Amino acid sequence: MAPDKRAAFEAALTARRLRWHTQDDAIILMRTDCPICRSEGLNSRSRILVRCGEREVVATLHQVDAEWLSLGEAGLSEAAWIRLDAEAGSILKVSHAPTLPSLSDVRRRMTGRRLNGVAFERIITDIAAGRYSDIQLAAFVSACSTLKLDIDEMRSLTGAMVKVGEQLEWDAEIVMDKHCVGGLPGNRTTPIVVAILASLGLTIPKTSSRAITSPAGTADTMETLAPVDLTLADIRRVVDAEGGCLAWGGAVQLSPADDVLIRIERALDIDAEGQLIASVLSKKIAAGATHVVLDLPVGPTAKLRSQADARTLADHMAIVADGFGLKTRFVFSDGLQPVGRGIGPALEARDILSVLQRRGDAPPDLRERAIALAGAALELAGKAEAGSGLALAQTALDNGSAWVKFQAICEAQGGMREPPTAAQTAPVTAIRAGKLVAIDNRKLSRLAKLAGAPQQPAAGLMLHKRLGDTIAPGDPLVTIHAEASGEIEYALSYARANTDMFTIEG
Amino acid sequence: MAPDKRAAFEAALTARRLRWHTQDDAIILMRTDCPICRSEGLNSRSRILVRCGEREVVATLHQVDAEWLSLGEAGLSEAAWIRLDAEAGSILKVSHAPTLPSLSDVRRRMTGRRLNGVAFERIITDIAAGRYSDIQLAAFVSACSTLKLDIDEMRSLTGAMVKVGEQLEWDAEIVMDKHCVGGLPGNRTTPIVVAILASLGLTIPKTSSRAITSPAGTADTMETLAPVDLTLADIRRVVDAEGGCLAWGGAVQLSPADDVLIRIERALDIDAEGQLIASVLSKKIAAGATHVVLDLPVGPTAKLRSQADARTLADHMAIVADGFGLKTRFVFSDGLQPVGRGIGPALEARDILSVLQRRGDAPPDLRERAIALAGAALELAGKAEAGSGLALAQTALDNGSAWVKFQAICEAQGGMREPPTAAQTAPVTAIRAGKLVAIDNRKLSRLAKLAGAPQQPAAGLMLHKRLGDTIAPGDPLVTIHAEASGEIEYALSYARANTDMFTIEG
Repeated sequence: MAPDKRAAFEAALTARRLRWHTQDDAIILMRTDCPICRSEGLNSRSRILVRCGEREVVATLHQVDAEWLSLGEAGLSEAAWIRLDAEAGSILKVSHAPTLPSLSDVRRRMTGRRLNGVAFERIITDIAAGRYSDIQLAAFVSACSTLKLDIDEMRSLTGAMVKVGEQLEWDAEIVMDKHCVGGLPGNRTTPIVVAILASLGLTIPKTSSRAITSPAGTADTMETLAPVDLTLADIRRVVDAEGGCLAWGGAVQLSPADDVLIRIERALDIDAEGQLIASVLSKKIAAGATHVVLDLPVGPTAKLRSQADARTLADHMAIVADGFGLKTRFVFSDGLQPVGRGIGPALEARDILSVLQRRGDAPPDLRERAIALAGAALELAGKAEAGSGLALAQTALDNGSAWVKFQAICEAQGGMREPPTAAQTAPVTAIRAGKLVAIDNRKLSRLAKLAGAPQQPAAGLMLHKRLGDTIAPGDPLVTIHAEASGEIEYALSYARANTDMFTIEG
Repeated sequence: MAPDKRAAFEAALTARRLRWHTQDDAIILMRTDCPICRSEGLNSRSRILVRCGEREVVATLHQVDAEWLSLGEAGLSEAAWIRLDAEAGSILKVSHAPTLPSLSDVRRRMTGRRLNGVAFERIITDIAAGRYSDIQLAAFVSACSTLKLDIDEMRSLTGAMVKVGEQLEWDAEIVMDKHCVGGLPGNRTTPIVVAILASLGLTIPKTSSRAITSPAGTADTMETLAPVDLTLADIRRVVDAEGGCLAWGGAVQLSPADDVLIRIERALDIDAEGQLIASVLSKKIAAGATHVVLDLPVGPTAKLRSQADARTLADHMAIVADGFGLKTRFVFSDGLQPVGRGIGPALEARDILSVLQRRGDAPPDLRERAIALAGAALELAGKAEAGSGLALAQTALDNGSAWVKFQAICEAQGGMREPPTAAQTAPVTAIRAGKLVAIDNRKLSRLAKLAGAPQQPAAGLMLHKRLGDTIAPGDPLVTIHAEASGEIEYALSYARANTDMFTIEG
């Protein structure tokens, strides 16, 4: 409907900030008996267009029939307040939300039909603009998961996600990037890889996400060591100075639609292949990468359960990436058990520091993985002959130049800091003797999340045993770190109810 | 997690009623800085278990960091307040919501795998208990639509929906029911059919739904003529006395899970085959029906677009119904244009009255359809020889016994009433001359909804022309009825932008 037609019966209210947190959900609260609700026929849960000066947002209407909200007032959730750039008493104009043509595309997908690029662009544009309700977002995510996206759809979704966001460009001929398809607690190689590659003169403007379903994302972990909430200008400055950065991708709006979808995927605890590929590649492409190395940990309780699954994902990812001129290399790694000792932002950060500082107690598995990925990147970039990348990467780590570079990057991002320490800890001990033959990564991740990770950066787990270790009854298997007793209690009760998290035999 | 473990770190707040309307969505509002949020690690959008005495509900947490909510208080949405049967100052205990095993089933469906009866029962039980968030509900609905339910799944879903609700039993050997698979505005035959059949001694305890995506459901229309919000005891009393009733199904919890799912389907404006079949049949079975006649209007802009679609739906429905010992008969009807003249609760009610009262201006098409369906029911029930049902039904209507029976049913339900009249009307006129060759039912429904139907019972449309009529420029095609100018304006602007609602040729 054209704005002029809308204006004809659009009505005004004054904005009230309720400091009401609903994550990204834009909600407006109005009195059930307010004249506008009556004249416009607005009901609870109506989707309405709210305008404040030049800004506008589509919000979900909630209604109140009590005096604590006055008739002429509209209460706003923080998500709506911020998107409208409102101030106390700002005049809000509300009207029925225009119908979204892209919802017909979502409904078509929900009847099992495929969508073309135009349709994905319509949908992603509306999602990035915050025009979808949670119900509409969840329906779209579910439809794209239940009937897997085909290659064309993955390409369309990836392209649409890039198009609606910011895009970086670099003078460097080769711009390297790195990504791990999660599912393996503690596999925090990125900061080490970036330090090694930047120290060897490669350009690697690394942006990372926060945790989706894991106890920590690289951005969560890095944030305990330095500011990661960088603007585009900050990133450019840091990369120009140091060749690399370790920033949070969400802050720079490289793929704003993806950030919205990730919130829904987290709530559903799913991470479907097509969306995963579009999510990963759209951010690499938007960041201006020309080459990317992907770490695919494989194990029965990792995200990728079999070599076959990993192979399929790699093949699909390579095809889609190729369509955007992005060169890929995949490293299939061991996903049987967590990497390093820490699980959770601060605890993983300590593992990273011990490797960069070449300390004797540094977890060897984390060190080896970082070297393998850096080596692959050096070969992909042509910085090393096939087969010699590993040695080159190892030298940069052993001669301390990676550690020097890492500190320089942290300083450039706003200053290096000490990871926090949890207020409370409690051990989970073995109830029988034998050999540790299996670890359930998913349950271990859940345990770390119940302890408060990643919202509480110091929360998480320290893992004391590795596969093959001999266990005696009473041996501590992991130590839970948490900020509050409620979380310790909740994590312990989960551990007690899930002793199969560790399989001890013989 | 066992309650005793939960109790160990469960904390208390006092309930505050905010008279906050969010439809079925249970939301609890707490201070961001309240000790419980901190100790339990609760964040905005956490799913939490709220207990009040013996009652409990899983709610979504919203947080506030302002003084208007005090630290020890928890604000509740009406949905949560009512389900908890709370009072001002009631002590609420909150803790992390236990993980729902049924969500693993939903995730499995979201990877394209089929679900068995046990899984559907787990899911539907949790949905009926209000344990799913809107995001989880929408994901389930979308998964069951994107990959169509197969026959086994339809049977499982139907059975699960019946199992979680109330079930009626009747002494009568034959209990008749009737249903129309909507999509055709104004097709309000049910009250007439029930009156005819009950007047001929058939038992027909009819429960109907409110509108899902249409401008009026049978319950919305009947509510303008008599109370429909009947308890199980009321229904039994009315049916024992009159042989039939015309009640709203939602009030008697015949299929509580379906009522939740319908809210999501309405928000998404979809109505997938499998869910449609489970929704319809679960309510017939729960209502104790042994025989059911189904009206399937077919037309390019009706819900069923082709005879083939209708045939498939009928076949699937018959197979699923048969599994529950429910006998079916299908009547394929003309879905090219609206039935009668009124579209919207009160306007459709007037058409019904004119048919029952045998007035000269009664819409012939509505009368014929009602007779056809009643005739089919009489034959299915063995009350009439094959081919003679029609005549028997017509007699009951023409000799006035159906009208007498209808009034008796309305009185038994709490008293017959006069349908309301809208405050304002405005005509939509033809812009060219010619013959009316097509009507877009979907756009006509949307127009009626924009006018305020069904929330405003008097709102809707009066249709002045039928297919084949000769039109002169300026002729009124429909008259919009609405309670408020905002709605008239909004409907008119839609009509102006969608003149293809009526195709006038030659």
